[in-house]
Amino acid sequence: MTTVAAYAAPAAKAPLERTTIERRAVREFDVLIDIKFAGICHSDIHQVQEGWGEAIFPMVPGHEIAGIVSEVGPGVTRYKVGDRVGVGCMVDSCRECDNCKAGQEQYCVKGNVQTYNGIGKDGEPTYGGYSQKIVVDENFVVRIPDGLSLDVAAPLLCAGITLYSPLKRWNAGPGKKVAILGMGGLGHMGVKIAHALGAEVTVLSQSLRKKDDGLRLGADHYYATSDPKTFQELQATFDLIVSTVSAPLDFNAYLTLLKAEGVLVNVGAPEEPISLNLFSVIGGGKTLAGSMIGGIPETQEMLDFCAAHGIGSEIELIEASEVNTAYERVQSSDVRYRFVIDTATI
Amino acid sequence: MTTVAAYAAPAAKAPLERTTIERRAVREFDVLIDIKFAGICHSDIHQVQEGWGEAIFPMVPGHEIAGIVSEVGPGVTRYKVGDRVGVGCMVDSCRECDNCKAGQEQYCVKGNVQTYNGIGKDGEPTYGGYSQKIVVDENFVVRIPDGLSLDVAAPLLCAGITLYSPLKRWNAGPGKKVAILGMGGLGHMGVKIAHALGAEVTVLSQSLRKKDDGLRLGADHYYATSDPKTFQELQATFDLIVSTVSAPLDFNAYLTLLKAEGVLVNVGAPEEPISLNLFSVIGGGKTLAGSMIGGIPETQEMLDFCAAHGIGSEIELIEASEVNTAYERVQSSDVRYRFVIDTATI
Repeated sequence: MTTVAAYAAPAAKAPLERTTIERRAVREFDVLIDIKFAGICHSDIHQVQEGWGEAIFPMVPGHEIAGIVSEVGPGVTRYKVGDRVGVGCMVDSCRECDNCKAGQEQYCVKGNVQTYNGIGKDGEPTYGGYSQKIVVDENFVVRIPDGLSLDVAAPLLCAGITLYSPLKRWNAGPGKKVAILGMGGLGHMGVKIAHALGAEVTVLSQSLRKKDDGLRLGADHYYATSDPKTFQELQATFDLIVSTVSAPLDFNAYLTLLKAEGVLVNVGAPEEPISLNLFSVIGGGKTLAGSMIGGIPETQEMLDFCAAHGIGSEIELIEASEVNTAYERVQSSDVRYRFVIDTATI
Repeated sequence: MTTVAAYAAPAAKAPLERTTIERRAVREFDVLIDIKFAGICHSDIHQVQEGWGEAIFPMVPGHEIAGIVSEVGPGVTRYKVGDRVGVGCMVDSCRECDNCKAGQEQYCVKGNVQTYNGIGKDGEPTYGGYSQKIVVDENFVVRIPDGLSLDVAAPLLCAGITLYSPLKRWNAGPGKKVAILGMGGLGHMGVKIAHALGAEVTVLSQSLRKKDDGLRLGADHYYATSDPKTFQELQATFDLIVSTVSAPLDFNAYLTLLKAEGVLVNVGAPEEPISLNLFSVIGGGKTLAGSMIGGIPETQEMLDFCAAHGIGSEIELIEASEVNTAYERVQSSDVRYRFVIDTATI
């Protein structure tokens, strides 16, 4: 066991504060990682606030982790001390179900072990990346290529794969018109990745406030969804829309922006059920789909793709003591585009 | 112009009665068809009752038409007098948009011309198959292969293609577990076609009342959705569910029956919006899709497929005078499985 400094929420909705946690001793297939940077994901806030149901406290959030390997167990073959690595939303899964065998551990039928707010196979609660060290089985560790700085790589472990996976699955690429709905921590990654995949990219954002950023990051077009003309002008335009929005939306209106057989994928997660007129998908043979992060092999593929295309997250680097202020700013959409904690400041 | 006997609803919600209508003179690319059989589709009833919005009266319903060519225009190249042919839900489209060019006239961006309750390019209302003759442009006529009797072929023109298209698009076939939700006019076609495509087929019906039929038509399994145990037993089972149901359903419950990345396609059309928890599609990377009939080339492909596999609809052949009684029985799900009007009795 190792005592490690961390930032934790002691109870639901409570501010985060500095504390210490215990990390397990390195086991046969474990990697000990010195965490350098941890991204702040909106879902960290949802979970601290129990917006998605009862949670485990104290909670050390953080599933966008980048660091350096400092110790490996005797059975570890993939990593050695000094390697640049990342950990995302999962640290284990059953490894036996069809989904795990297919490299889709995020859909493990027995439920994977989340990086924090989860219970490991040893029965112990898991603690996330707002800490100085973490111990993870090598099968749930990915390699961060040399070309990627660790600070801008950290958010790729959740925000990056969350966009990369549906963009790949639903064929974003040359000749395809792709809209990214929402220009936040997820959306700005969608713009960069869809552009790098060769698609014609449109941002659909509430206002034009971030238009310059959108175009700079790779968007070809930028529209305000608060302007009703947008919905007239863009009727039947897109092959694919990826919605990163977790606020309530009029899905019937957005489905009209798809071409026949177009796809609207949701990676944002509104807490309330939506109202959907099924004629919105029947006429036009359209698809409303969901997507949740990606499996470990695809997360590695995404990191390699991002390194090859020089893609990192746009970040605001903060000290750990600023985390509660950062949470408030994320909730008011006041961040361009991802807060990343310098874990040396914990 | 030719005066033709027909059954029509003179006004919304009125009973159908015998009348006569005028059919246009055969034009350069037209085919005159002596209608032999016309299927009764649930959407005929929706439209007579204006359940889908304001409609055109008098209305001669019927878009499941099988007959024999009795005259052709001078420009017609595909058909000759005596050919066995069918007409489905469309009799024209813009023919210029991307969807029309791709053979997906059902998604014509300018709106196709429906076989009845539509307005043709000549500005005249269209009248459907509950009549003795119809004049249709050859591009919207399909060939009924010799192996298929015209009476059991008629319902393929709507019910058959409505199921065939999504089953093909979403890869029903060997190694795939496919559920057909609803065991009516649409559903029983889904069972036959999915079985012929090589899938393992499960019927999900309200009760086990039609179980013997389902197994005889090709289903491997049959479950009652009124039994809560069905939902426990079938968790995460299916690659594809095709819902033919137009009554309200708990979609969140049905989505739990899909495997990861499974697809629930709706061809049934409930009139009220559904309530959907987006977590039902996000967790599992699932898809809720819609599908509407199919294009002309795919309708021909479907007929050829059905002929090759000996697939027709299960029908109850009626005289035209029985149509109002038949409507009542369709609304109480009391038909096995499609009423077909012998148009010689009009």
